[in-house]
Amino acid sequence: MLVVAALGGNALLRRNQPLDAAVQRRNVEDAIKAIAPMARKHQLVITHGNGPQIGLLALQAAAYKGVASYPLDVLSAESEGMVGYLIEQALANALAGAEIATLLTRVEVDPADPAFTRPTKPIGPIFSAAEARELAARTAWTFMPDGDGYRRSVPSPEPRRIRGTNVIKRLVAAGVIVICAGGGGIPIAAESSGGLHGVEAVIDKDLSAALLAQEIGADAMLLLTDVPAVWSEWPMASGHPIRRTTPAELRGLNLASGSMGPKVEAACRFVERTRRFAAIGALEQAEAILEGSAGTVVTMDDSQ
Amino acid sequence: MLVVAALGGNALLRRNQPLDAAVQRRNVEDAIKAIAPMARKHQLVITHGNGPQIGLLALQAAAYKGVASYPLDVLSAESEGMVGYLIEQALANALAGAEIATLLTRVEVDPADPAFTRPTKPIGPIFSAAEARELAARTAWTFMPDGDGYRRSVPSPEPRRIRGTNVIKRLVAAGVIVICAGGGGIPIAAESSGGLHGVEAVIDKDLSAALLAQEIGADAMLLLTDVPAVWSEWPMASGHPIRRTTPAELRGLNLASGSMGPKVEAACRFVERTRRFAAIGALEQAEAILEGSAGTVVTMDDSQ
Repeated sequence: MLVVAALGGNALLRRNQPLDAAVQRRNVEDAIKAIAPMARKHQLVITHGNGPQIGLLALQAAAYKGVASYPLDVLSAESEGMVGYLIEQALANALAGAEIATLLTRVEVDPADPAFTRPTKPIGPIFSAAEARELAARTAWTFMPDGDGYRRSVPSPEPRRIRGTNVIKRLVAAGVIVICAGGGGIPIAAESSGGLHGVEAVIDKDLSAALLAQEIGADAMLLLTDVPAVWSEWPMASGHPIRRTTPAELRGLNLASGSMGPKVEAACRFVERTRRFAAIGALEQAEAILEGSAGTVVTMDDSQ
Repeated sequence: MLVVAALGGNALLRRNQPLDAAVQRRNVEDAIKAIAPMARKHQLVITHGNGPQIGLLALQAAAYKGVASYPLDVLSAESEGMVGYLIEQALANALAGAEIATLLTRVEVDPADPAFTRPTKPIGPIFSAAEARELAARTAWTFMPDGDGYRRSVPSPEPRRIRGTNVIKRLVAAGVIVICAGGGGIPIAAESSGGLHGVEAVIDKDLSAALLAQEIGADAMLLLTDVPAVWSEWPMASGHPIRRTTPAELRGLNLASGSMGPKVEAACRFVERTRRFAAIGALEQAEAILEGSAGTVVTMDDSQ
């Protein structure tokens, strides 16, 4: 079975944790302990978020006065390097002898996507109002409220086409564990001439994972995060966990707010387009989620 | 014919140019114009330097006070993302329809390598004495004289084993252009337990290219830089360009100083171990160098 596992940025770096390299390395090692056993039984493609990491890289770039600040396509490529390496190294240590490949992935978006005029995706740490004002004045970044503070927000256009899926399919067929499409992929757009250029955006990694899973013919897609299931209402305290459901039922709930919105949308799209298996749940329960005994399982027929 | 082409960091970012993303993007596009025609005739594996880029990433990380500074293995992975993406995108624009894969590459070094006690590899920009003193006090970095100023210097241990060569060979056999081992690879070392960990170093990208070319069975290795050939003496003004030579003859010259030392050593090693073709020369003349009509050509028998 070919499984695409998407590791949430928050599962790799928990809220309020400092963005230190050592903290990330430890979290990735923990995450891989939960994922590695699946690679013994199945073909595995791993993708990951980069919201905290690309926010950090942008802050580091903005703090150094020597050069003009770096655009989000280049920072996204840097984050694929940073997080991809940490995952590859942890996997190599967990699965001696396994063949692993970490690929940079460019993902095409529509340059006319309305998201470019509405920066809605939060990246980086939470700032106080005063810090956000100071940064906004210095960088021209936009900010949105988040919890008790503010986070930088950037455009998040729809992924339209994953570049390099043939390479991914080739490696999977050869038994290689592939890490790719990190952070939703490096955002690029085609010009009318056919040329490609990078764009200032961060693509949602769950929506890219759904498109990737569809294009490489995955049997199952797991969206792994820091909560055990989709809840019937938000905030969690007022509802109950949903165990088995269908895209139609999920779309009837109002889950757009918070980070669950894109996960639910991604799971619905994959199941609607492929009639296969998607699930959302806690990273530590990855194996049980794949077996259908934990998390929220999404299929076309919930009697399965 | 399988060709490994190593693009020098200085060829991608010339001395005294600012490290802006736009400048790098333009330089990479120019470099790829010189490389792309070879991909129409030969199987091509591209590797690249990262001295300027990893130096910049370290400066950016040090300028941001929010987190502890990042170690060189993680920064090296970031630089493979940054430069690898720029190369992949330029290649995709130059060769419509070509399959391209950019892989992160970990390279094993010996943790007892004496290089760890002698930081000799310069990275990043040239600083004034005052700037270098201020940075040294704030970061514990070491600096070495370079031209009229100072550059940060880091340990540069010998590459011992390229991880992931089977994946590279598989992709090359399938007709994919592979970009890998950027910046000499992400430096890792094995513990006595067998576990792997990242180390604080920057591996020489030409020495890694030679090991890579040997391990994947390349027919030719091109070390492409910003000078047209190896000169018989250094500085260039006092000698003449060497056109055809052997490892024995090259090792008899005293070329260790400057950036030509590692290139000469890398070319000698590849030719001695494989009895195949290595050459050193200007990036813009890549095709002519491969045909033997430009650059310094190194083979076991210089009458060829």
